[in-house]
Amino acid sequence: MLRERFPEFCNSPSPPAEVKMEESVTLEMDNHVLEKEDGCYDNTEATFSDDEEELNNKGKKREFRFHPIKEAIIDEPADITPFVDQLDETLREKVLQLQKESDTEMQCEVMQEIVDLILEEDFDSEQMSTLASCLAELFKGHFRGDVLPEEITEESLEESVCKPVCLVFRNLCQMQEDNSGFSVLLDMLAELYQKQPKIGYHLLYYLKASKAAMGKMSLYESFAQATALGDLHTCLMMDMKACQEDDVRLLCYLTPSIYSEFPDETLRSGELLNMIVAVIDSTQLQELMCHVMMGNLVMFRKDSVLNILIQSLDWETFEQYSTWQLFLAHSIPLETIIPILQHLKYKEHPEALSCLLLQLRREKPTEEMVKMVLSRPCHPEDQFTTSILRHWAVKHDDTLGEHIKALLIKNNSLPRKRQSLRSSSSKLAQLTLEQILEHLDNLRLNLMNTKHNLGGAVAQWVGPRSCFPVGLGFESRLGCLAMDWRLVLGVSPPPLVLRPRF
Amino acid sequence: MLRERFPEFCNSPSPPAEVKMEESVTLEMDNHVLEKEDGCYDNTEATFSDDEEELNNKGKKREFRFHPIKEAIIDEPADITPFVDQLDETLREKVLQLQKESDTEMQCEVMQEIVDLILEEDFDSEQMSTLASCLAELFKGHFRGDVLPEEITEESLEESVCKPVCLVFRNLCQMQEDNSGFSVLLDMLAELYQKQPKIGYHLLYYLKASKAAMGKMSLYESFAQATALGDLHTCLMMDMKACQEDDVRLLCYLTPSIYSEFPDETLRSGELLNMIVAVIDSTQLQELMCHVMMGNLVMFRKDSVLNILIQSLDWETFEQYSTWQLFLAHSIPLETIIPILQHLKYKEHPEALSCLLLQLRREKPTEEMVKMVLSRPCHPEDQFTTSILRHWAVKHDDTLGEHIKALLIKNNSLPRKRQSLRSSSSKLAQLTLEQILEHLDNLRLNLMNTKHNLGGAVAQWVGPRSCFPVGLGFESRLGCLAMDWRLVLGVSPPPLVLRPRF
Repeated sequence: MLRERFPEFCNSPSPPAEVKMEESVTLEMDNHVLEKEDGCYDNTEATFSDDEEELNNKGKKREFRFHPIKEAIIDEPADITPFVDQLDETLREKVLQLQKESDTEMQCEVMQEIVDLILEEDFDSEQMSTLASCLAELFKGHFRGDVLPEEITEESLEESVCKPVCLVFRNLCQMQEDNSGFSVLLDMLAELYQKQPKIGYHLLYYLKASKAAMGKMSLYESFAQATALGDLHTCLMMDMKACQEDDVRLLCYLTPSIYSEFPDETLRSGELLNMIVAVIDSTQLQELMCHVMMGNLVMFRKDSVLNILIQSLDWETFEQYSTWQLFLAHSIPLETIIPILQHLKYKEHPEALSCLLLQLRREKPTEEMVKMVLSRPCHPEDQFTTSILRHWAVKHDDTLGEHIKALLIKNNSLPRKRQSLRSSSSKLAQLTLEQILEHLDNLRLNLMNTKHNLGGAVAQWVGPRSCFPVGLGFESRLGCLAMDWRLVLGVSPPPLVLRPRF
Repeated sequence: MLRERFPEFCNSPSPPAEVKMEESVTLEMDNHVLEKEDGCYDNTEATFSDDEEELNNKGKKREFRFHPIKEAIIDEPADITPFVDQLDETLREKVLQLQKESDTEMQCEVMQEIVDLILEEDFDSEQMSTLASCLAELFKGHFRGDVLPEEITEESLEESVCKPVCLVFRNLCQMQEDNSGFSVLLDMLAELYQKQPKIGYHLLYYLKASKAAMGKMSLYESFAQATALGDLHTCLMMDMKACQEDDVRLLCYLTPSIYSEFPDETLRSGELLNMIVAVIDSTQLQELMCHVMMGNLVMFRKDSVLNILIQSLDWETFEQYSTWQLFLAHSIPLETIIPILQHLKYKEHPEALSCLLLQLRREKPTEEMVKMVLSRPCHPEDQFTTSILRHWAVKHDDTLGEHIKALLIKNNSLPRKRQSLRSSSSKLAQLTLEQILEHLDNLRLNLMNTKHNLGGAVAQWVGPRSCFPVGLGFESRLGCLAMDWRLVLGVSPPPLVLRPRF
């Protein structure tokens, strides 16, 4: 079985990563992904760098964004001649044996012998980098093509982790962390990572897919700390980015574990979320949503979701819709994210406004909601506030009326003064009496307009008393409530604006 | 004012239609639209066809889909020499005067004189086609570029309908339909429509934008019947399609009126909806949603929405999301569209499944909902049913339990027999006892899996009694209810399927 399966790693051209995408909408994502296929990080060339140079690099953080180099996919036979002569005789023999061996099962056996050699007490650690160069060269075929089997079953998963390189992972999983060999193997992986950064997400995959690694996901943190990056967050982001560029299916497969295993690194990371929503198609979005609803995936937490949604406002349309769909699959109360309204500009953020509008319309308005909605600046083209007020006016007449009355009273007794800063949500809301009244006027005009079926001929100021005959409960109560307040407060009506017809 | 504004119609090159689009997501739509800009329908060339030929064509329906011909945008001076000599002397003079005149206001005056000539009793209707050819040629500049002013105000709208061609529209609006001149003018427009099909949506625009046309939108129906198409529906669809190809902003501007004025033609038309969602960007989607919520636009009705949503399943991802967002802006109860679940295949319809999932999770389950959800075929990769059942199990334990119990009883007493056909929604649902139990088993596995935090190591059959220790109310009551039923009914457990890990 293994024999049938693995020869392809030595001589087949790299099959393109399976990127199932909606042809049309995600066209440019598609390109984006395909272009970077088989891309390498810039330091892949640094195979000749000596130990000293690497030590110098150790402290520095590698730049987060990759600059992929386009590589011709020519499967040259592995050439390890520059390195192999620098190895001790025993190790050299094993490496050459590994090179000759075309049977994967046999390769695994030889690889285990190499690992055993490394773990011997008298192993000369000076050789580690050279060995890593040999292995990176010998295994380069393993890092092309799909990692994840097409059909995911226990058996196919187990089979997919039967590669020589996975033997290092397996040995690591079987060790106690205080075993001296543990850090030796980590050093070995760190060296390999320098030559072949894809090993990072291959390790993540192994930890998730292999039975032998059950419950050992945290091992990745030790790995990250052992690398030149030296830091879990950076390493995880780089590996997920590399995975995103190589294989979107794998990215989706890893996502639930990554989020549950490393919540501190993931739940506050707009970057990671954007990596995901930038490349998934609607099928993968649906799968992730199901994972969320089945309790296998938590992508948002109450304390950080607002911040992430605000970050998402700069993303592309489909990325934003996907983000909102994922958010809505969670059971996070809407109040948590309503303050986002203060950041939403009518012309710049239609995606978020649409999603929020559909959520607000399902809620019974709270005073905070009404306040947030009324806090939006009045702009003749921005019909968000009128839309939601109208909906609430029809559906929750009394509640809306009470909240508006309360807000009118508060904002009259505190004229021009900012609301207290006690709740973070009201920090930015500058609600003035004039603004409330202008929104209410817009609402009144809309109600008269649609009830009286004037067919678009509204662009004239309607006197305060003309709201009486409209006959809608809300209209006659709340609309005129506002009118009465205007009289009481001596506020002049907003200027006559020519409104667009509908 | 007018003078400053209109000279451009004679000599400016056609400005590209303003197509505000999300750069990325709607890239291919953009191309689609821009390619077709200034496209003409295939019969535009038929300027030489004589009356007889046109009479023969009268009964035939023009093909609905256009085959736009790419036209170089070279603004040649209007050449009416082939036609003008065939006109009576008075008419010829007026037409030549129109040709010489470069001032729009003056052109309008001459145009009025031409209209007056046509309306005279002794006007020779044989000349109509020739006159139309002249006018189509003279006005061809008017049909390029944007119709809708950039900023929409009463004034700018009124200004935008001050073109000579609009004079025909205005005269029509001022007449009684039983006036003999009315049909003469309609004939004239029908002739013009043959040479310049864009006149169709220009008429729609005029009827909506001009004060003089207030409440006269129905005039378009008379126009449609007078054309060679002879039919409101076909004519409206062709004109909206032409508008879509030329100017998306205008399409959005016309949409509310078209839907409210011609509900029979629009509310059941998936075609029209697709025209719209295929080209709008997220800003325009947000505007349309606000129109819906403000009562200015009704795009879906209870009796036809299900059918339209089913049609939308073949559309592109963004088109489908837009359709659902528009639907959700309406206040149509979810029950109306739940039967769509029977049409949703896991791999083919992720957009609709995602949207429906988010809607169902907000509902308290009814028996019909539970039945529909359980009627989905069991497939190890399709996690829709498990997702929503889990959510309901956590949130509406008792209700869900009762509905499932009721369904188990019904389906045991009617084994293998199709449900009665009394409700259309259950027509296709083939709910078997085995299926219910398999879904419940999936749910049970999921609950155990996530509660016990087994981290993905589930793929083993869990014996019926092992549900007891889980400790979740639902689990112990409903899960074991299913188990008990299995024992009672002598049903064997579903085959051991290797489930994907999460």
